[in-house]
Amino acid sequence: MKDLKLYSMKKVEIIVRGEDIDFVIDILERAGISGYTIFHNLSGKGSHGFHEGHLLFNEEDTLVMVVSVMPEEKALSILEGLTPFLNKHSGVVFISDTMVSRLEKFKR
Amino acid sequence: MKDLKLYSMKKVEIIVRGEDIDFVIDILERAGISGYTIFHNLSGKGSHGFHEGHLLFNEEDTLVMVVSVMPEEKALSILEGLTPFLNKHSGVVFISDTMVSRLEKFKR
Amino acid sequence: MKDLKLYSMKKVEIIVRGEDIDFVIDILERAGISGYTIFHNLSGKGSHGFHEGHLLFNEEDTLVMVVSVMPEEKALSILEGLTPFLNKHSGVVFISDTMVSRLEKFKR
Repeated sequence: MKDLKLYSMKKVEIIVRGEDIDFVIDILERAGISGYTIFHNLSGKGSHGFHEGHLLFNEEDTLVMVVSVMPEEKALSILEGLTPFLNKHSGVVFISDTMVSRLEKFKR
Repeated sequence: MKDLKLYSMKKVEIIVRGEDIDFVIDILERAGISGYTIFHNLSGKGSHGFHEGHLLFNEEDTLVMVVSVMPEEKALSILEGLTPFLNKHSGVVFISDTMVSRLEKFKR
Repeated sequence: MKDLKLYSMKKVEIIVRGEDIDFVIDILERAGISGYTIFHNLSGKGSHGFHEGHLLFNEEDTLVMVVSVMPEEKALSILEGLTPFLNKHSGVVFISDTMVSRLEKFKR
């Protein structure tokens, strides 16, 4: 018998220039995150949430967002892995609470 | 006079293969959810949040994400409706807290 | 030395018809929000979360979602700015808690 359970996790959303997607995927995979979804052909401007931001997108950039869900300690590890990249490239990371479905096999 | 109020709801994000979108919409509509937004042409890999996941997307799949906002009991009902589907198909469901705007008519 | 810190912010997601994107951007910029990401070519139906909604999308509409992250008081200001628009046009606003990365320069 299988059942669908919800687990409390962190949703990590990483928005970068399209050309930088491979770097982000590489960081995820090195951290053992093998599942993610990519949203293509976004546009945008500026940095999120901060006026004085050093992280600027231009309106001409084509952006992508990579979304994955993971335990909190993995999210912090991803963030640490992205820091040197974000020192030099445009990008923003959102981390939010979510519940994620997972199929469980169990015996009644 | 109208005013915009915020209501506390659950945001339900369902990512499946593009070919499975009609099934998901059907589940939503049977549960009385008549509003949703669809994000097309996503790509992805693996299952979210779990290494050992049985729910695998391939990098060649074109995915869609259906997003809707609903009271918690509807979200659980949707999840229950999706369980037999997710036993056999690839997909992941995220459920998060959100506030949603709604126009209210009111008298001063 | 630079470091990546996480700040608690509100994520504001605004879904409107594609033709209304400029109005939404204008509201954001008047509120001093200079950073946002746009998701294009969404589709959808109905209003989110409410059956009786006056805010209807048709299945033929092409929708966009504008996402930005900001302090709570800005989010409420955006919502107030959008109210007259949402009195007359289709749209929905989600406001969620998130943490956002920001590069910080600091001295050790």
